[in-house]
Amino acid sequence: MTSRRAAGITRCMKPRPKAAAAPAPAAEAEGRIFDVDCKLSYTLLDDTHFLFIVHALDGMDQQVVTESLRITPTLEHELHTDPVFGHRTLRLNAPTGPLTLRYRARVRVMRKAPDLKAAEVPISALPPEVLADLMPTRYCESDRLASAAWKMFGDTPPGHARVQAISDWIHDHVEYRVGSTDSSTTASDVFLQRAGVCRDFAHLGVTFCRALNIPARLAVGYSRFDAPPPDFHAMFEAFLGGEWHLFDPTQLTEPLDLVRIAVGRDAADVAFATLFGPVRTRLIRPEVERVRARRARKTPARGA
Amino acid sequence: MTSRRAAGITRCMKPRPKAAAAPAPAAEAEGRIFDVDCKLSYTLLDDTHFLFIVHALDGMDQQVVTESLRITPTLEHELHTDPVFGHRTLRLNAPTGPLTLRYRARVRVMRKAPDLKAAEVPISALPPEVLADLMPTRYCESDRLASAAWKMFGDTPPGHARVQAISDWIHDHVEYRVGSTDSSTTASDVFLQRAGVCRDFAHLGVTFCRALNIPARLAVGYSRFDAPPPDFHAMFEAFLGGEWHLFDPTQLTEPLDLVRIAVGRDAADVAFATLFGPVRTRLIRPEVERVRARRARKTPARGA
Amino acid sequence: MTSRRAAGITRCMKPRPKAAAAPAPAAEAEGRIFDVDCKLSYTLLDDTHFLFIVHALDGMDQQVVTESLRITPTLEHELHTDPVFGHRTLRLNAPTGPLTLRYRARVRVMRKAPDLKAAEVPISALPPEVLADLMPTRYCESDRLASAAWKMFGDTPPGHARVQAISDWIHDHVEYRVGSTDSSTTASDVFLQRAGVCRDFAHLGVTFCRALNIPARLAVGYSRFDAPPPDFHAMFEAFLGGEWHLFDPTQLTEPLDLVRIAVGRDAADVAFATLFGPVRTRLIRPEVERVRARRARKTPARGA
Amino acid sequence: MTSRRAAGITRCMKPRPKAAAAPAPAAEAEGRIFDVDCKLSYTLLDDTHFLFIVHALDGMDQQVVTESLRITPTLEHELHTDPVFGHRTLRLNAPTGPLTLRYRARVRVMRKAPDLKAAEVPISALPPEVLADLMPTRYCESDRLASAAWKMFGDTPPGHARVQAISDWIHDHVEYRVGSTDSSTTASDVFLQRAGVCRDFAHLGVTFCRALNIPARLAVGYSRFDAPPPDFHAMFEAFLGGEWHLFDPTQLTEPLDLVRIAVGRDAADVAFATLFGPVRTRLIRPEVERVRARRARKTPARGA
Repeated sequence: MTSRRAAGITRCMKPRPKAAAAPAPAAEAEGRIFDVDCKLSYTLLDDTHFLFIVHALDGMDQQVVTESLRITPTLEHELHTDPVFGHRTLRLNAPTGPLTLRYRARVRVMRKAPDLKAAEVPISALPPEVLADLMPTRYCESDRLASAAWKMFGDTPPGHARVQAISDWIHDHVEYRVGSTDSSTTASDVFLQRAGVCRDFAHLGVTFCRALNIPARLAVGYSRFDAPPPDFHAMFEAFLGGEWHLFDPTQLTEPLDLVRIAVGRDAADVAFATLFGPVRTRLIRPEVERVRARRARKTPARGA
Repeated sequence: MTSRRAAGITRCMKPRPKAAAAPAPAAEAEGRIFDVDCKLSYTLLDDTHFLFIVHALDGMDQQVVTESLRITPTLEHELHTDPVFGHRTLRLNAPTGPLTLRYRARVRVMRKAPDLKAAEVPISALPPEVLADLMPTRYCESDRLASAAWKMFGDTPPGHARVQAISDWIHDHVEYRVGSTDSSTTASDVFLQRAGVCRDFAHLGVTFCRALNIPARLAVGYSRFDAPPPDFHAMFEAFLGGEWHLFDPTQLTEPLDLVRIAVGRDAADVAFATLFGPVRTRLIRPEVERVRARRARKTPARGA
Repeated sequence: MTSRRAAGITRCMKPRPKAAAAPAPAAEAEGRIFDVDCKLSYTLLDDTHFLFIVHALDGMDQQVVTESLRITPTLEHELHTDPVFGHRTLRLNAPTGPLTLRYRARVRVMRKAPDLKAAEVPISALPPEVLADLMPTRYCESDRLASAAWKMFGDTPPGHARVQAISDWIHDHVEYRVGSTDSSTTASDVFLQRAGVCRDFAHLGVTFCRALNIPARLAVGYSRFDAPPPDFHAMFEAFLGGEWHLFDPTQLTEPLDLVRIAVGRDAADVAFATLFGPVRTRLIRPEVERVRARRARKTPARGA
Repeated sequence: MTSRRAAGITRCMKPRPKAAAAPAPAAEAEGRIFDVDCKLSYTLLDDTHFLFIVHALDGMDQQVVTESLRITPTLEHELHTDPVFGHRTLRLNAPTGPLTLRYRARVRVMRKAPDLKAAEVPISALPPEVLADLMPTRYCESDRLASAAWKMFGDTPPGHARVQAISDWIHDHVEYRVGSTDSSTTASDVFLQRAGVCRDFAHLGVTFCRALNIPARLAVGYSRFDAPPPDFHAMFEAFLGGEWHLFDPTQLTEPLDLVRIAVGRDAADVAFATLFGPVRTRLIRPEVERVRARRARKTPARGA
């Protein structure tokens, strides 16, 4: 267990990415810069333990340049880094009353354009660490949807095209409707009711891929939507050609612009907030903006 | 409650149909003749109450010419006729030990060829007695599959063509696989797992129709299969153009040749046997043969 | 199909019950008098077909003394009486715009106090018309909950005491929580999540009874709650000692005071409103008051 | 990805445990010795990729003394060790035809008797690596069963006694019935149908614990049953007092005698065999015997 640290604002300058991943193609060498400004606000009706997964991922195909965290009231907290994926979980005990959390970060995203020719990896050649991403999970019952997946996509050319076909099918056949699902909705529910929100779309994509023996997982993060309101976003990733490829079946955003927070087997692993107590949510406002070249050189604004 | 009758063999000659239905077109005036020979055999581990629905329907679009029932050992039984649909339920208490039931009948089926131009009836014009056939039932959760049904068949031309499209889709996308389902399998299970047997195919057809506001119900009876073994068969009926139209999404049989036993909202209403006790099934052999014109004039053979 | 009638207000004085049922015990000879005042209000976004089941049942253990129906705007409508149970379904087509329905009635309820010694009827002695009430339905999957039912209530003394034990268990273990369920929630969902509203409580009661071979059905009607707001109520009925007995597992009301609207196999049969079109609900206010002896002699007030 | 090794028989003498865990109490210092002899036999109808998780766990509270693996025909294979839990996954491609796998091991189990006074760890004090064991998974929908869990066990004294109460409740209310479940059966299915086999019992235990904020996971391994046939066994583990405690709700075996193969979030993680191809299973015979002191000094027999 990590040691506890006195907190308030955690701010650190990071000169270079911890896990620099494979070098990006020249054109993307410097990546794209995004400013994240996430504000969460609650009223606690009793002392409550919180798990927050809101920090931008510092690793994989992106790098946190600067970040700050402000918790009001000032509270002790811990920050755990997942040993496998590198995402960070913030834990804290908060007393009855108001709780506000503001996380700000400047993040460099160095994601490559997808390789549209990426092939499916034969099962026997899959690296052992992705085998778990073939298995069914709470929200992705790939066993239950296996026959449907094979009948629907079994004859599609394998590889990136097949996963794109899955993503397109979801976009074309599932309606994006706020309020149509809740935290117990699974991929087979979504397949039946043909409606959901971003996490439901992503769960269905994960499920079809796994059913077809393509490792797949959920990716959550900050994305800019043309239409308000700002919200956390979820996509899915499929393992093709030895690498993870992002797909957004909602087609509301551009995968290249996702500022990753975490990846997980499904939403049970990477909820942005898990609350152990009676709480009223007052505000969820995770904003993100791309920083144009000129502006990126300046220091990002910080919260008051 | 009907009076109890001493039984053994019940045999009766029926000179004409009780409910003669609308007159069939000239070409079908005499109908098609079928001989049914249904043998069921059980070993009862305790005294058991049985409900059997195996008698050929004497009404709607068919007429029972002769029939016989032999129960071994000889037992008192009752025969109830459903006040709405006319199907008959045989009830009996049988003691521990073997029980054999043999039902034989010659049946004239006077079903018209389907009207391929039959239109959907607007909801406001549906007769009140078919409104219940719009509602979801145990095995036909038309509420859960409503969005999928509209997305899949909402743009198909309405009427007979739409129900045919539903039936064809089921045939093309659901695998007929014995043992893939059980008595708790619902239409949404079948839609997810894409496998089932005749009753599952029919339930899915019923479900899609109801979701699209087309009254639909299950029809069970005797059908001849090219490949053994003989078994009870299930189809679905849709209410089009003011009449019920049979569809067989398994495409294993010809709806014109179904010898009806019963219709119901789903299989919960019309199981061929419902057993209230511990029983081992030894034999289910419901055979049916079409009788050609020459032979039909002769008296049908009777069981020993 | 019934003929259409011009409508607006339908008002009729009924000197005596159509189906007087068994005579009530002396103390209840005159029954209890209730005044119902039900107001429903909608905004239709398109022309819409409606089925309303809101008329008080005129039969079984109650008698409609007077009733009136006002539909605004004035619209043609039909009123169908269910051939089996006698409940009435109001059908109408309404144009885009506002729709208001007001149903008022004075009803004499002549329900007997329950026979606490009523025995379960052996399956072999059940009248044929209640056999369907043993079968699973959309919201009452008695097949899925059969083992649980037998393990929970198999050793309880059979008869009224067993059904009371079921009703009490539901009251003690399921939380009454508005908003915890929706129109697709089934008895097994309720059993898992341990929360629901009156129809969910009733569905679970129906389900346990059927699993234990006790015929059971849903009863809906007008009940007075001590705490607002007024709402339609649902209970369940079990067939004991040759008669139907009402149970209210919510314990919010007194079954003797239910003004019945309808009985059905589950909520799919007896929804108070079924709408075939896009509609916004503005008001659901089904009020009921018991009329004390003195006041009952006066003519009930009528709506403006 | 690990390198491939030519195989056939893998045999290694292990002088001491890799991960010796906390020292066992004196009385258990030498542990209990078990001989495992697991034979699996298949007929492959096509070339098939296999994942086997059958190796005894060498770590936690046990130590592999010797082990051997024989694959017939001789095939290349890989053995991956899970970086978190230490269980081993055997991967191989096998050609059409017969495939037999025989794994034998002598294992020292140094499990302590459970601490009946172990307390529940407050959520805020849970080590980060067990937080995932609070989350719902494919077969353990702790979110769906949360209300039931709290209503059933919320008032039980917390700690070991509460988990024991859960285990006892499962034993008393769920019937052990071979064939009652399949690979898609979840904890809520088991809770409804009140029947299952060892993995179903364990999943339900895991689910109730997680719902009550007690981290829990599945443990699979070799156990001796008094009644044949031998089979892989599953139990559940709950995190109490800072340590994992084994519970066997089937009460068919003694947790102290489980020879662990693996732990996982649920059965999706730790199936003993995962097959990617058409295969007929011919034999599953995982045997285990406790070796008494005298015999334990001798070298275990090896397969022909």
